[in-house]
Order: sequence, then C-alpha cells, then structure tokens
Amino acid sequence: MNATDLLPNGLRLDEARAEARRTYELDRAHVFHSWSAQAEISPMTITASAGSYVWDGDGNRLLDFSSQLVNTNIGHQHPKVVAAIAAQAAKLCTIAPQHANDARSEAARLITSHTPDGLDKVFFTNAGADANEHAVRMARLHTGRYKVLTRYRSYHGGTDTAINMTGDPRRWPNDHANSGVVHFFGPFLYRSRFHAETEQQECERALAHLDEVVRMEGPSTIAAIVLESVPGTAGIMVPPPGYLAGVREICDRHGIVFIADEVMAGFGRTGRWFAFEHGDAVPDLITFAKGVNSGYVPLGGVVIDAEIAATFDHRPYPGGLTYSGHPLATAAAVATIRAMEDEHVVEHAATIGAEVIGPGLHDLAQRHRCIGEIRGAGVFWALELVADRDSREPLAPYGSSSPAMNETIAACKAGGLLPFANFNRIHVVPPCTVTADEVREGLAILDRALDVADGHLG
Amino acid sequence: MNATDLLPNGLRLDEARAEARRTYELDRAHVFHSWSAQAEISPMTITASAGSYVWDGDGNRLLDFSSQLVNTNIGHQHPKVVAAIAAQAAKLCTIAPQHANDARSEAARLITSHTPDGLDKVFFTNAGADANEHAVRMARLHTGRYKVLTRYRSYHGGTDTAINMTGDPRRWPNDHANSGVVHFFGPFLYRSRFHAETEQQECERALAHLDEVVRMEGPSTIAAIVLESVPGTAGIMVPPPGYLAGVREICDRHGIVFIADEVMAGFGRTGRWFAFEHGDAVPDLITFAKGVNSGYVPLGGVVIDAEIAATFDHRPYPGGLTYSGHPLATAAAVATIRAMEDEHVVEHAATIGAEVIGPGLHDLAQRHRCIGEIRGAGVFWALELVADRDSREPLAPYGSSSPAMNETIAACKAGGLLPFANFNRIHVVPPCTVTADEVREGLAILDRALDVADGHLG
Ligand SMILES: Cc1ncc(COP(=O)(O)O)c(C=O)c1O
Ligand SMILES: Cc1ncc(COP(=O)(O)O)c(C=O)c1O
Repeated sequence: MNATDLLPNGLRLDEARAEARRTYELDRAHVFHSWSAQAEISPMTITASAGSYVWDGDGNRLLDFSSQLVNTNIGHQHPKVVAAIAAQAAKLCTIAPQHANDARSEAARLITSHTPDGLDKVFFTNAGADANEHAVRMARLHTGRYKVLTRYRSYHGGTDTAINMTGDPRRWPNDHANSGVVHFFGPFLYRSRFHAETEQQECERALAHLDEVVRMEGPSTIAAIVLESVPGTAGIMVPPPGYLAGVREICDRHGIVFIADEVMAGFGRTGRWFAFEHGDAVPDLITFAKGVNSGYVPLGGVVIDAEIAATFDHRPYPGGLTYSGHPLATAAAVATIRAMEDEHVVEHAATIGAEVIGPGLHDLAQRHRCIGEIRGAGVFWALELVADRDSREPLAPYGSSSPAMNETIAACKAGGLLPFANFNRIHVVPPCTVTADEVREGLAILDRALDVADGHLG
Repeated sequence: MNATDLLPNGLRLDEARAEARRTYELDRAHVFHSWSAQAEISPMTITASAGSYVWDGDGNRLLDFSSQLVNTNIGHQHPKVVAAIAAQAAKLCTIAPQHANDARSEAARLITSHTPDGLDKVFFTNAGADANEHAVRMARLHTGRYKVLTRYRSYHGGTDTAINMTGDPRRWPNDHANSGVVHFFGPFLYRSRFHAETEQQECERALAHLDEVVRMEGPSTIAAIVLESVPGTAGIMVPPPGYLAGVREICDRHGIVFIADEVMAGFGRTGRWFAFEHGDAVPDLITFAKGVNSGYVPLGGVVIDAEIAATFDHRPYPGGLTYSGHPLATAAAVATIRAMEDEHVVEHAATIGAEVIGPGLHDLAQRHRCIGEIRGAGVFWALELVADRDSREPLAPYGSSSPAMNETIAACKAGGLLPFANFNRIHVVPPCTVTADEVREGLAILDRALDVADGHLG
C-alpha cells in the first residue's frame, strides 16, 4: 500500500498511521484492558475493517479468523447494518425500558421467529454476561431453588455470578465459594474423563455422571443446569448426539430449568440459527448476545419459555437495566437478522464448514504432527494442538500459554491472519459470510504457522 | 397535530400511529420488561424525540422531565452525537477489547480530562451495573478483603452483586445473604435516623455511625465503601458539607477503597462534571454510565486511580467483557463530551438549577401542602410528597405506590409532562440542556398535578 492509498473506510493510509500512533499512546495512558496485566500488553491498533478483514495501524490487512471475540458473524461493516444504525440514530437513539419502541418490538419478534414454539418472549440485556445473570435469576425465582449446575470447560461472562458459572481459570480469582454454582464434567471424548472410547460411550457416561451429581447435590436444591450448546472459548466440543436430549430429560425429571447459553454458538455460528438445533432438545431459557447483531452495538438477552414467563405475569420480575431493549442495539439486530435471512448466511456457514473448512482442516491434520484433534461445525472449529499425539499432552498447559503457542500465533499474524487462540488451541472462527477463497487463503497461512508448532515437537 | 404533520424525525403522524399500534402489539407478545409484572403493564409507545421532548404513539408531545432513566443529559437526538454515531458506524462499528481503537482511546482521554489527577485510567463496561461489579472486584483484589459497605436508600444496578449492593426493595428478592455486602445509614436530614436537627448534626452523626459500623464489622475485613455521590433513584439526598470528606477520612484510616457511583449523578447532572466535586473528597474509583454519552449507545465504566491500576500492572485483572470500549459507544461519548464542553452544558445545568428549577420548586412548595421537602442541585431535584407535613408520613409507603401518587403521575402525563416517580417522590430530572421556558412549562403542569395530590390530604 502507498501512503495515499485508501482503506475501505476512506481513511488515507498515512492518516491511518498517524491516527494509530496517537491511538496507541492514548490507549497505553488511559485504557485499562480486559483480562490483562496492564504493563505487559501491547495492543494492536485496528483502524478499519470490511467483510472478513481488518487493517492494523501500519496498514497491514489481516484476515479475521477470530471474528473479534467470535461476534462479527455477518462480517465487518455489513452495509445494511451500518445503514440501519445510521437510520435508527437519526430516528430515535434511546428510550427507557418501561416504554415500547418499534425497533425493540421488531427485534423481539424476529428473534423469536427463529426459536421453537413456546419460546416467545425476550428480555433484552446489554451483552452475554448479564443475559446469563438474568436467566439464572429467572430460574431461581421460578423454581424457588438456588443452586446452579454448570460444566467445567465453559465460559459464561465477566460479572460476578456469570464468572462463577464459568468453568475455566478466569473463575479462580473471583471464586468466593458463595455463588451457589456447582461444576460437573461435560462430554469431551478427546480428553475423556469417563474413560470412554466412542462418542456414544462418552455421551452415556457423561449423562450418568451428571445424573449422579444431581442426585448427590439434591435435585430439590437445583434451580438450573446451564450449558453452552457447544462450548466455545473452552474448546468447541460439539456434544455427542443425544447428550442435550439427555440433559433435557434429567431436567424434566427433577423440575430443573435448562438454560442454553447460545451467546457464542448462536445466530449462525454452527450453521444453524441456534446450536441446540443440532440435537433434539429444547431449552427453557436461551441466552444470546454477539451474533444477534454481530456486536455492532452492545446487545444480549434471554429468550423465555411461556411457563417461566408466566411466573412473572403478576409478580414483578426483580431485575432490569437502563438499556434493556435499546433502540439502536435492537435496530442493528433487526437489520442483521434480516440480512442473514435474505442472504442465506446461516446456510452458507453450514456449507462452508462442511465443504471447505472441515475438509481443509482435516487436510492440515494429515500434515502437522502438532494437531491432536480437529472438531467443529459451520464456522466454529478448534484445532487441539499437542506436544505429543500419543500422550495428547497439550502444547500449552491448561490455563496458560507456551513459547510454542506464542510463536505459532505470531506466525499467523506475520502471515496476515488474525487467529483466536486459547491455551493449547487455535480456533478457526471467521465470519459466517467468509468465502471459500478466504478460507483457503487463511488455511494456507495457518499451514505455514503450524510448521512453527511442529518445530517445537520432540 | 394533523395526520399528515411531521414528527421531528420526519415520520408522518398517521405513519407514527400505525407504527405505534404494531409496536404495542409486538411488545405485548414478545418483550419482557424490567422490574415489572408482565401482565399488569401497558407500556407507552415512544415514536420520536427531540431536545427535551418525546412523542407518544398517539402523537402527543410530552416534556421529558425524566430524561428517560435520568440518562439523556444532553437532550434527545443531539445532532452532533447522532452524526458522530453515523460517522463511526461507517468507519468501524466494533472491535475486540484486546485491540486499540481511536474512539476508545479518545473517549478515555476525554473522560479522564474531567477527573482529578491520578484518576487517569478507564475500564469500559456496557452500563452502570457492570461498572459497579468491576469496581468492587478491583477493590477486593487490591485490598485482599471481601466485604463491601453501601448505604440504605441507594441503587447500584441489576446484576447479582450490583443489586445486592443496592439499598432499596429491589434487592430483597435477590438477597441470598452471601453477597458480602453490609448496609449502613447515610445522611438524610428530612428523615434523620440520627435524631439530628441540622445538616451539620446529621453529617457528624452519620459519620459517627459509619465509623461505628466499620469498627464493628472489622476494618480489616472491608474492601470498599461504595456511595452514590448524590443518591439518585433513592431520593436525591445531596450529602451535607463534609460528609464525603469524612467518608474519605475513614477509608484512608483503614485502607478501604472509596468507590463513588456517579452513574446517575455524573456528567453534568448536578451542575458539575462529577457530583463528588461539590465536596472536597476524591474517590479511588469512579463508576459512570448514562450521561457519559447520554445513553445513545450502551456504555459505562470505571475510572481507576493510579495505585489501584498498578495492582494490575503485572498481575492480570480477572475481568472483562466482549464490548469493553466499544467503538460506537465510545465515539458517542467523545461527541457527547465535546458538545457538553463546547456548549457549556454543565454550567447551564448549574445555572438553570440555581435560578429557575430550585426557585420554581420552592414556589410550588409554598402552595402545595403535599410537598414535604424540595432538595437537589443542577437538573437533579426531588419533591418528597407527604400525606401530612407534621408527621412527614410519605404519600406512598416505602417500596410501594398509592392511589394519590398514581393519580398525580397520571395528571402529569395528561398535562403533557413525563415525570420520574419513585414511591412517594417525584423527581424533576430534565436534560441538562433544558431551557428556562421548558422548565416553566413543566412546573406549570406539575403545579396542576400537585392539586390532585393535595386533594388526597386529610
Ligand atoms: C458462551 C458465552 N457466554 C457468555 C459470554 C459473555 O458475553 P459478554 O462478554 O458479552 O458479557 C461469552 C463471551 O465470550 C460467551 O462466549
Ligand atoms: C446510581 C446508579 N448506579 C448504577 C445504576 C445501574 O446502571 P445500569 O442500569 O446502566 O446498569 C443506576 C441505574 O439507574 C444508577 O442510578
């Protein structure tokens, strides 16, 4: 690129570079970042984005295989969503939650048009964490019970209850042993805790384990079982056939509310509108955020089944927030969902996953010893990297990183790919709109980066 | 208005009415509302807004003396903020929190340009509740202590920890006695719990009470004291001179973190950028939301002093969220703060409060027996309505409503005024940009509505 070349948002490259320098300096002086040791980070500046790409502060184009935090399902700067935000801003930016508003009403209608019958009401929040907080509250008040069961290897958000529901190391510094959350093991054949050798065994044993935890904890003490339909950041472990139905059955047996966290897996990510649709269980509450409007404006929420909603027909629901059903955020959801429908984005995610990403990754697994397992669906894939294929020793310890992982990630970036990495895994999570050519371009970069990982193996 | 007349956003009145009917139906079918018994509400549809006014679904114009949930400090649809949202949407809607972005950097710089020296870092959240959740987490990890002290008659948000910090009845259904929060009494001369007769007595006794609670709870167990600099929804009790400085002194004596919740009181509401500036104490952490961008896009955050920030220089801060420092939200903050500076909005709020609202309300108090007390500053005023001036019996019980209150509120709306009401109080909380004529128009409507309340008195 020449200094006078234009970025997709019209910024000249030399302007973008000057802006990026100032951005970086102010960031280091004034911005406190999530999940970080503040003096040890050196954030990459992003000045522009379009479709599957972002541009860094030097004007380098990076193929976004992260969808940021797995939220830009419709790609960056989708023109229909950008236009809808501008139009709603001109019409009506904000209104309090006690009033009614057309964007909010229409978003609730559209969202529930994609959920099963009976799941017809939406409580809007700002994001995923508060969606989960409110879902748990509804379950607690509906059942009159307090305890919540969630799985190890999961993420549910950053606020106090949500982080305590979480089953990853980010919970540890926040765990004061008073959250009312009990963790169990979910199915994960590659690292089976049940000594299983087949998906079916893993499913049966994981359900037996959950059943036993419920019996030991006391069914009458349990308000809800909360599960990511497909655990995301924790490793994209697609549940074996029958698992979610089995959980549903345990919940039904004991009057426990089944909460599906679809914050990351929902809105097309797995090639279906919601990831639980891959099984044949319907949850009582669905939490969502991210893909609902691709994160263009902060938005989350809970879809509520009729029976739980009725609990609050004549008894006030004791929860709320200033921006519940924010007009700008819900207008972005309306535009996003309509564009996803019109442009068959969900179907595209399914096809590109089955025909291009899946086969491409399995091809990489043939050629790289560092790949222990490939798993996923749609545009939601994980590469489990290992130091040794036989022992399955991860390439970085649980909850941590390693030189091998850091160098592999750096090689991705140097090659023009922005990956999503967690511990010993690299996730391939591009926008649902990613093209076959972009996937091939990304996998080629990944291919070279994985040589670096291979080089670390004994 | 004729059916073909235009609302300020260009909608024709007949279109707006048709839209409002559909909005209402879909709302009732699909939207689950905050803090409500769902079958017992009948939300007013809002189709347009401008400056200090909103328009309902029938095309009636209402003077907004609520600023919605006391958030539209800059008024509705401020053209500079609307334009900034459209411009940022076209440039870059969203980017993950680990990267750096110009809107985020500039918002952090501008916010901290209005905070005291040493309070130079901003952790961005989506709203007020999560700002308070994260502030408490920072205090807990910084001190290594768990307990948090907050006052009765306060509101801190809807997520689990925030609602348990809250000192109003919305906490009760969410209180599982394990939140680590202990409540104390703050200064409130009109309903003194300290048998005080002057502001100075109330101040001294409230501080002695807090000191005693700290001693009894054990100073070494207390991470933070959290206070709204001026309690908002709970009644706009401006603290007596010296109170916040006294709290600061208690915190210093015991190494307790002083958190000022400026979510409602901040960004001009009291006629200063932050409400704590009325005293001479500087908090360690400031939480904000609402006024920072008038709620045009969901945004909140924590301003962090250097000492607490340094705790997380080499130790990761264990908290985060997908939309921390969201470009669209922070761009709206940049435009809002710049417009507030350029148009002297904060100074205007101070003047209109001192010269028009305050005198006007005191004038009403002369003529309406139902007014027990008037208190406030800037565009942040409460009318304490009473059934009896001598006994000070509130016109509705604590945590509840009454026919007298409901009819008075209805009379405001029928007269063309949207009030903010809580229990036995009506708050006068228009945008900071409200004009003297608008204030006079609103007070005239209020005047007639208060006749209804007077009619209920013995
Ligand atoms: C499955 C899941 N649930 C909840 C959340 C929390 O969402 P947010 O960061 O918007 O609060 C996330 C975020 O990554 C998530 O992946
Ligand atoms: C003082 C105060 N703190 C916190 C909050 C919570 O903010 P939010 O509703 O944006 O979560 C509010 C909301 O009214 C508030 O007034």
